Amino acid sequence: MFRAHCLLVALRRCSSAPCPRHPQVARLSVQEAQEAQELAGDVKVQGWVRSVRSHKEVLFLHINDGSSLANLQVVGDPTMENRDLTFGSAVEVQGKLIRSLHKKQNVELKAENIRVIGPCDNLKFPFKTRERHPLEYTRQFPHLRCRTNILSSLLRVRSEATAAIHSFFKDNGYVHIHTPIITSNDCEGAGELFQVRTSDKVPEPGENPHFFNVPAFLTVSGQLHLEVMAGAFTQVFTFGPTFRAENSQSRRHLAEFYMVEAEISFTESLQDIIQVMEDLFKAATSVVLSKCPQDVELFHKYVSPAQKGRLEQMLKNKFIIISYTEAVEILKQAPQTFVFQPEWGCDLQTEHEKYLVKHCGEVPVFVINYPYDLKPFYMRDNEDEPQRTVAAVDLLVPGIGELCGGSLREERLPFLQSRLERLGLAHAYQWYLDLRQFGSTPHGGFGMGFERYLQCVLGMENIKDVIPFPRFPHSCLL
Amino acid sequence: MFRAHCLLVALRRCSSAPCPRHPQVARLSVQEAQEAQELAGDVKVQGWVRSVRSHKEVLFLHINDGSSLANLQVVGDPTMENRDLTFGSAVEVQGKLIRSLHKKQNVELKAENIRVIGPCDNLKFPFKTRERHPLEYTRQFPHLRCRTNILSSLLRVRSEATAAIHSFFKDNGYVHIHTPIITSNDCEGAGELFQVRTSDKVPEPGENPHFFNVPAFLTVSGQLHLEVMAGAFTQVFTFGPTFRAENSQSRRHLAEFYMVEAEISFTESLQDIIQVMEDLFKAATSVVLSKCPQDVELFHKYVSPAQKGRLEQMLKNKFIIISYTEAVEILKQAPQTFVFQPEWGCDLQTEHEKYLVKHCGEVPVFVINYPYDLKPFYMRDNEDEPQRTVAAVDLLVPGIGELCGGSLREERLPFLQSRLERLGLAHAYQWYLDLRQFGSTPHGGFGMGFERYLQCVLGMENIKDVIPFPRFPHSCLL
Repeated sequence: MFRAHCLLVALRRCSSAPCPRHPQVARLSVQEAQEAQELAGDVKVQGWVRSVRSHKEVLFLHINDGSSLANLQVVGDPTMENRDLTFGSAVEVQGKLIRSLHKKQNVELKAENIRVIGPCDNLKFPFKTRERHPLEYTRQFPHLRCRTNILSSLLRVRSEATAAIHSFFKDNGYVHIHTPIITSNDCEGAGELFQVRTSDKVPEPGENPHFFNVPAFLTVSGQLHLEVMAGAFTQVFTFGPTFRAENSQSRRHLAEFYMVEAEISFTESLQDIIQVMEDLFKAATSVVLSKCPQDVELFHKYVSPAQKGRLEQMLKNKFIIISYTEAVEILKQAPQTFVFQPEWGCDLQTEHEKYLVKHCGEVPVFVINYPYDLKPFYMRDNEDEPQRTVAAVDLLVPGIGELCGGSLREERLPFLQSRLERLGLAHAYQWYLDLRQFGSTPHGGFGMGFERYLQCVLGMENIKDVIPFPRFPHSCLL
Repeated sequence: MFRAHCLLVALRRCSSAPCPRHPQVARLSVQEAQEAQELAGDVKVQGWVRSVRSHKEVLFLHINDGSSLANLQVVGDPTMENRDLTFGSAVEVQGKLIRSLHKKQNVELKAENIRVIGPCDNLKFPFKTRERHPLEYTRQFPHLRCRTNILSSLLRVRSEATAAIHSFFKDNGYVHIHTPIITSNDCEGAGELFQVRTSDKVPEPGENPHFFNVPAFLTVSGQLHLEVMAGAFTQVFTFGPTFRAENSQSRRHLAEFYMVEAEISFTESLQDIIQVMEDLFKAATSVVLSKCPQDVELFHKYVSPAQKGRLEQMLKNKFIIISYTEAVEILKQAPQTFVFQPEWGCDLQTEHEKYLVKHCGEVPVFVINYPYDLKPFYMRDNEDEPQRTVAAVDLLVPGIGELCGGSLREERLPFLQSRLERLGLAHAYQWYLDLRQFGSTPHGGFGMGFERYLQCVLGMENIKDVIPFPRFPHSCLL
């Protein structure tokens, strides 16, 4: 909708308002121009050409500036055509917004002047007008693929989802924390850590070879640092990059990916954590669906038609909760055979997770109370099954498998201490034990893989297509 | 203000609502309890003890849960005291909110039951009740210092400022981009880069020693990747960690710090970029001042009394703009002597920047049009002084010096190509040249150091005290 003060808004948005060379002209984004209901008089719109059609009496251009999926139709005089006016070129069009006779749009821009700002050599440009390029092909051009419809829609959705996640936590009283990227915590699964070094120079005798005096690594999770903060702010969250040096070429793994993590003090029940996970998923998804309907539709129409109905189901119904023990029973009774035989005490594989989701009707499923021996030292021993299960939860979703993982944390000093001692980690984690010595509280939290979240909402098969610059084994382009 | 639906809000906030053991009791945060105007009946409040005063007939507790700087006063019966009820312990108080007779607060909590959830051994706990600990001292305890007033206020301000910056860009139509942390761009100032490696194992003959096939580094700036995105979305921003392997122990440098960066297409004037920088500073600061008045006041009262008046001046007045050439003239005419003699063609040092800010009346100063030879290859050559100055801008602020740096980027293919060829970088930056070959637009952008921004707003001297977990040479605690 075009509000009465839209010109003002537009003028405020573009900082050099009005246009310095044409003070009577207002700059509008393509989206603002498309949405115009009142017609704004003389406007100037800039963007990239998506198509050129030249007829005997009229020239049609579609231009796009990334503000939305839809293009703005420009109608010009055939004399305005020139050989630089090609697909991909950057143009500035000055003219009048007029009511369109065509059903597809409210308005179009009647051009008075078209200026090519940056031409685009169509012989060398890797994308062609009105052609749908396979995602594998576009991946070769990380510096240009954001100009395709599918990647530009994806990145707009990613941006809205990011904002929605920040808002969800802020509105619920959480403090945002920047947990560190470089960390000296090296005890968890050291094989999958990236090391951070300064240079290859051999240290002088007596010189410490480490910039930080100790070996330093890229973070695999902000959880332990968030627990520090939950001891001061009660409810905290972080949303930042995490890293795995895993030699996996799967469609579900990246070496650099984003995690949303939350930690909540004064909670004694896994149900509390589960509720926040479900609320977060539903709140973020509702915002994305209402803010980017066109972008989401593109995916649900061309990429993953099954996803649309599924998403509506997910938002409408309460997520299902089953125990790990129940899950193993379901798997054992499954009519299908698995590569990995389901067995109590063994990790659930992706094939198992997908079966469980299907078994429950293609809805999100929380699996709780995993075997004690499968899970890391910080998870809370269940009082009714000591040393047999811990208060852990994974959220499995259709098409993806594991989306979130969380737990209550072991807040009882003697339990945690003896567990760390058995692992030989009590000294390295003295600071973590301190949190239990000074004003400890029952607490818990979870992490959600942001790229997997986007895959789930949009139905994207390959995780490399939901992040601007994917990093994975053998590839770090740009 | 306590709204009528506050109980509902509170019940929604804490996910296990109502309290499972006391279904008639609502959970409130300390801030909600403090703000209560209508009295909420039976409530339960959890937090950490900030002080205990036991009189003959009454027990006073102050508790805090990090939701605000202010504590909630709890009034109890002396029989409720026990030896675990000490400074730093975690408690749960059930009782009734009543109107307080004391002028300092609206309400207090009349305790019916006080339960110590997590005791705190005061002999070992590094902080003492009602004592102001020097910041150097608190820095030794990165896992506990967030429980001091100063650090908890700092982190609440940091969280609000983060949200305000995201909102500023979102409200102005920018798309948020996660620029990569690991990058193969190694050509700029390689000495200050951290390398990312997997392990120390010697590669097999014929095996590529690099996880990504190429050497990989931690990003020093998201700018070049943002330029990619500005070529699709017109207005983009990023807000993430950046890294320098600089061996500096200064109070202004960290090895890991946060940058806010924006990039704007279709702009031909440095003035456009300057306007966004000024708007961002003022918008974020206004939000922080209005959302965290108590927290900000703590700094302006105890840490940096001069800062309060300065900030008001900054927000009220237009920032000053001078050229680099004018700046050098001002410095040459200065009555004071500098360690580094000011000279046209030399970098401005921190001592120079501070003098310029003082000279202009302790207000923010934009310095524009720096010497061509001082600045990186991507900055745009000024048409009126070719190869003498570039369209660069730095924002200098009181107490800090450089807060932001920006420029117009060289969008003209021949200019950029010849510059990269002279530097021997044309091959490595072919992808960057591509951006100029395919629909290039005049564009520009800037980066703001987030920690320096916080130092500026709060008057904090040491950058190590405005980030949750500081990383610097010889130190990477936790």
